[in-house]
Order: sequence, then structure tokens, then C-alpha cells
Amino acid sequence: MAEIKILTESELRQCVALSAELNDVIADAFARLAEPGVVMPPVLSMDLPAVNGEVDIKTAWVPGVDNFAIKVSPGFFDNPAKGLASLNGLMVLLSADTGMVTAVLLDNGYLTDLRTAAAGGVAARYLAPQQVHTAGVIGTGVQARLQVEALLLERSIERLLVWGRDADKAAEYAAEQSRSLKLPVSVADSVEMLVQESQVVITTTPARQPLIRAEWLHPGLHITAMGSDSPLKNEIAPQVLADADILIVDRLSQSLERGELRTAVSTGVLSASIALPELSALCAGQHPGRSAEDQISVCDLTGTGVQDTVIADHALSLALRNGLGTSIHSK
Amino acid sequence: MAEIKILTESELRQCVALSAELNDVIADAFARLAEPGVVMPPVLSMDLPAVNGEVDIKTAWVPGVDNFAIKVSPGFFDNPAKGLASLNGLMVLLSADTGMVTAVLLDNGYLTDLRTAAAGGVAARYLAPQQVHTAGVIGTGVQARLQVEALLLERSIERLLVWGRDADKAAEYAAEQSRSLKLPVSVADSVEMLVQESQVVITTTPARQPLIRAEWLHPGLHITAMGSDSPLKNEIAPQVLADADILIVDRLSQSLERGELRTAVSTGVLSASIALPELSALCAGQHPGRSAEDQISVCDLTGTGVQDTVIADHALSLALRNGLGTSIHSK
Repeated sequence: MAEIKILTESELRQCVALSAELNDVIADAFARLAEPGVVMPPVLSMDLPAVNGEVDIKTAWVPGVDNFAIKVSPGFFDNPAKGLASLNGLMVLLSADTGMVTAVLLDNGYLTDLRTAAAGGVAARYLAPQQVHTAGVIGTGVQARLQVEALLLERSIERLLVWGRDADKAAEYAAEQSRSLKLPVSVADSVEMLVQESQVVITTTPARQPLIRAEWLHPGLHITAMGSDSPLKNEIAPQVLADADILIVDRLSQSLERGELRTAVSTGVLSASIALPELSALCAGQHPGRSAEDQISVCDLTGTGVQDTVIADHALSLALRNGLGTSIHSK
Repeated sequence: MAEIKILTESELRQCVALSAELNDVIADAFARLAEPGVVMPPVLSMDLPAVNGEVDIKTAWVPGVDNFAIKVSPGFFDNPAKGLASLNGLMVLLSADTGMVTAVLLDNGYLTDLRTAAAGGVAARYLAPQQVHTAGVIGTGVQARLQVEALLLERSIERLLVWGRDADKAAEYAAEQSRSLKLPVSVADSVEMLVQESQVVITTTPARQPLIRAEWLHPGLHITAMGSDSPLKNEIAPQVLADADILIVDRLSQSLERGELRTAVSTGVLSASIALPELSALCAGQHPGRSAEDQISVCDLTGTGVQDTVIADHALSLALRNGLGTSIHSK
């Protein structure tokens, strides 16, 4: 009789965290996406205006990975008033060969946070200049922390700038991060100043109006835009995408529908039939990524089911190795 | 700290089964679908030709129901050779107000079997003639058993006919069912004979070529076609739909895409813009259903997320009342 492993958020936190290995795992996931055989259907999105909520469901079947994940990501934005987090969810793992349920990862979005940050790390691996003096992060939430952690696994930096809509939160972020990263972290006066002083900029907000303008771009800048993952969000001006020397997306079809590319196309700045390289091509060695320190590069991340499948399968292996979880008979 | 309830198939089998109450629960689900406020996105379907598999994901948020289900239904058709069932899966329940995971129902498809059969019962409630002497079932699998059980909760019958491609399985079905139903059950010589002698016919097969022809229709016949739930399946000839006095679907958009209606439209027998009443209209009292004993009616069932949400929420209530399941802390 088969057993199903149930893992809680605290058990997952015990066995998986951001690391150079995790960046490698996610880079490998993208490399697999460049090969034939991956099945990754469009995101199932459910808007629930009656309760100010939404649910996204992502999945991908990846050849060579033992299990595939079905990830359920609810966002219920009245939750904070009830003392609950807005974002939650779980991942279900099915055997890639038989479809039998092998594990339920009750991660409350923890694995999503990790795989999202690791994709930023992978983008920096291929696209950031080799020499990064200053990195700038826009936003002050979980991803503003984790994205910098993932970047630091790929590049050394001398200082970090932060900008947030809420000045108090930005100050708090700077204070906390300078302690934990042992780096000078300061609040930028403006997004413009942050962009101009940084070689790597990471945007991590749910902004619906662009924060970054094309006139602020400068040679040797890399931008990772990871905030936009739904059709209403937009962090960077369409002209930024047009002016970049290298423009990479994690998944072209998703970026056109729910990433920065959507606005660039709807405003007529880019064509809907644009053929952009995906991050997978860089990870598979089919695209060189940055080839000169003075190029301007942009990477638009919307989050893919392949990342979910790979991190969930990886987390299950680590949990089993560490003897974690509750076993339930499947019958 | 919130608790998540984990329920196994055997625990679910202890607390929920086909019953008049369950038919009512499913009729109520359809009635709610007639009201505004239900959010039911299209099915997420994933074909996995490399492993002869497929996965369907269905969901619906239903006002007034405490939790909503996300159902994962894998079908891996090489499993029997490995000693495993082809169809499996689970349902995840989320709070309708907060999106927090409340339960994981490891039902291996059991609840899907029940809600599918109960929808057939509900269709019979509104569409079968009042007097049913003979019912005929096409197919010999789980639904061939459960659909008859659900019908018997709505109508008395004098005898049952069965037809299956595999004559041995049909004979076995007849022997078993005559014992368990305490009714005469016999194998029909042909589908034609079965249709001609029955007042209610239920088709439960994955046929890809129609089994029932229009020239066999007769006054006072009701057909429930529940087998087709994907674009390649087709159990009844398009002309049957055209000739019926009453043609009902469970969900028009789904029937056009993956039900009997798909073939009727693709062959030009019916128009893609046809406005057909849904089963929900009957359950909500907006459509009378059968209004004369000699009408010919057809109901095409493809299976809806509303049924999943309602049966999963119902099963969780019953399980909690019976003290079943394993509690896991959500953090």
C-alpha cells in the first residue's frame, strides 16, 4: 500500500532554504524547459472579487523529474485584517509515471518564495555584469529580502539601496538588512537615484503603474522585474523593454499575458509577435546572456510551473533524507 | 494555529456514499450554479503522451459554501499493467473566505465517482419519465454501477439491461447487479435492442464513435450521456441531440468543448451558438424539465467543478461529525 508524505511549512523550512545548490536546481529546471518534452499548460487563474481574492494554479510535467507538482496559490487580500497572511497555498506532488499522489507540501507559499527568488538568482547569473558595486531593490517585502539573498549567491556587492512606497518600511528594511547581510544598506531618495547608482536593480512590487523610466537606463545596468505576475501589474515602463540591449523573459506566452511584456505590447511599444529568448535558452547554453559589461539587460519573471515542480521534488527528497513528514496510507 | 484535516479514501468511504441526501446536495449545487456569484474557470487539462497520461484540474467557488475544492484528476492508462488504478487524484479544500487550506481529501477519485453518479440521479429526477419499466446501461465499469444506484434513488424500475463491448464483463455485471439490486438484470443483444426496450438509457463509456443512433429513439425515452468528458470522446450520434425534444447540458461551455455537443457542432448538426438550458436551470426551477411522458430527452454530463466543491465540503462536514481524519498543524 503506497504512502503519501505530508510536509508542513515548518518541516520544509527545516530542510530547504536559498543556497547556491537551489539556484543550480532552478537553473537546471529552466535548462530542461529548453528541451522538448516539458508539458506546462497555461496558468489556471480564478478571480474572486466577492472575497477580494484570487487563486492561481500552476503545473508542469518535466521529463526526468520523478514527481510533478500542482501548485495552488491563493491570494486573499482581506486576510491581514483577520490576522492571516494574504498569500498561502500548497503543492501536491504526483508521480510522473503513474499520477499517484506522492506528497502534499503544506508550505503556505514558502517554496514559491524560494523558487521565485532563485529564478532571480539565475537571471543574475547570466545577465548581471560581473562587477556589481551597488544593487538596488524596489519593494520591502519577502521577495525584496530573498531576491537579494539569491543575487548574493551569484555576485558580490559593496552596498544595497532600497526604495519603498512606505518610507518607514524602507527604513526598517535597511536597518534589518544591513545587520543580516553585513553590508551598508540605505534608503534611496527616489527610484531614479536607485536606478542611476545601481548595476543590478530588482523590482519586487505589485505596482500597476511603472516605477522605472527609460531615461534612467545607463550602460552596464541589469534589471530583474519579478513583481508582475498578473494582467493588471506593471513595474517598468514599456520603453525600458524596447531600449534594453538584451531582453529575456522566463516564459514568452506568460510574459505576454501577465508580465511586463503585456503592457509593452498593449501600448504598441513592442509587437505581440516579438520573438524573445527565454531564460531557459540561457540556462541551456543556447543564448550567451550578457556578453559585455556595458550592455543593458532586462529579465521579466512571471513564475513558471517548471520551477514549482523542480523545487517541490527537490524539497521532498530533502525531507525524506531528513526523516521529516507524516506518512498517510493512500487507501 | 489552524489545523488541516487529512482524510483518506477509506475514511471518506466510511462517511459518505450515494444516497437520496447526496442527490439533493448535488441538485442544490446545480441550483446555486444558476444564481450569480459562482466562479467556475475552465478546466485545466494536461495531456502527457510520454506516459500515456492526462490530468484534469477543476474548481469552483460557490457563494454560501464554506470551502471550495480544487480537484486534481490524473488518468494514467498504463497503470493497470503496474497493478494500479488508471484514475486517481485528490481534492484540496480551501476556505471560501480566506483561501487557507482546510482539508486534503485523498479520495483516489471516490468523491468524483459519487458526484458524477449523483448528477445522473439529478438528471433523472427532472428528465426521466415518471414510469420507468426498463433502464438500460451501456458500459460495465464503476459508473455503470453507481449511475444505476443514483437512478434508483429517483425512480423505481422493473428490470435493467446492460450492454458492454466485452461480453464477459457484461455477463459479470448482470450477475453481480441482479444479486445486489434484487432486480432482473440481463445482457442486451445489442445497443439497439437496449435502447428500444428502455425508458431510461445511461451511457458510461469512453467511446470515441457513437454507440446510439437517432433512428432508435422512441417516445418516452430519456438518455443521460455521462461518458464524454474530453474532446475525443463521443457516445451518441449528433442527430440524437438534434432529434430530442429536450436537450440539457450540465455546462454549455464545457459541453461544447468536451461533451456530446462538441461532435454535434463539429459535424454541423447543431450550431456552435446554440442556447441550451443547463441542468442548473432545472434544479433552480427555471426550466420545467420533462413535461410529458412521451417526450424524448437527452442530458449531456461533462462534470463540473461546482459538484466537486459541494461534495468535498459535504464530505468534510460528515468526516468531522464522525471524528475521522488526521489533523496537521498548518505551520
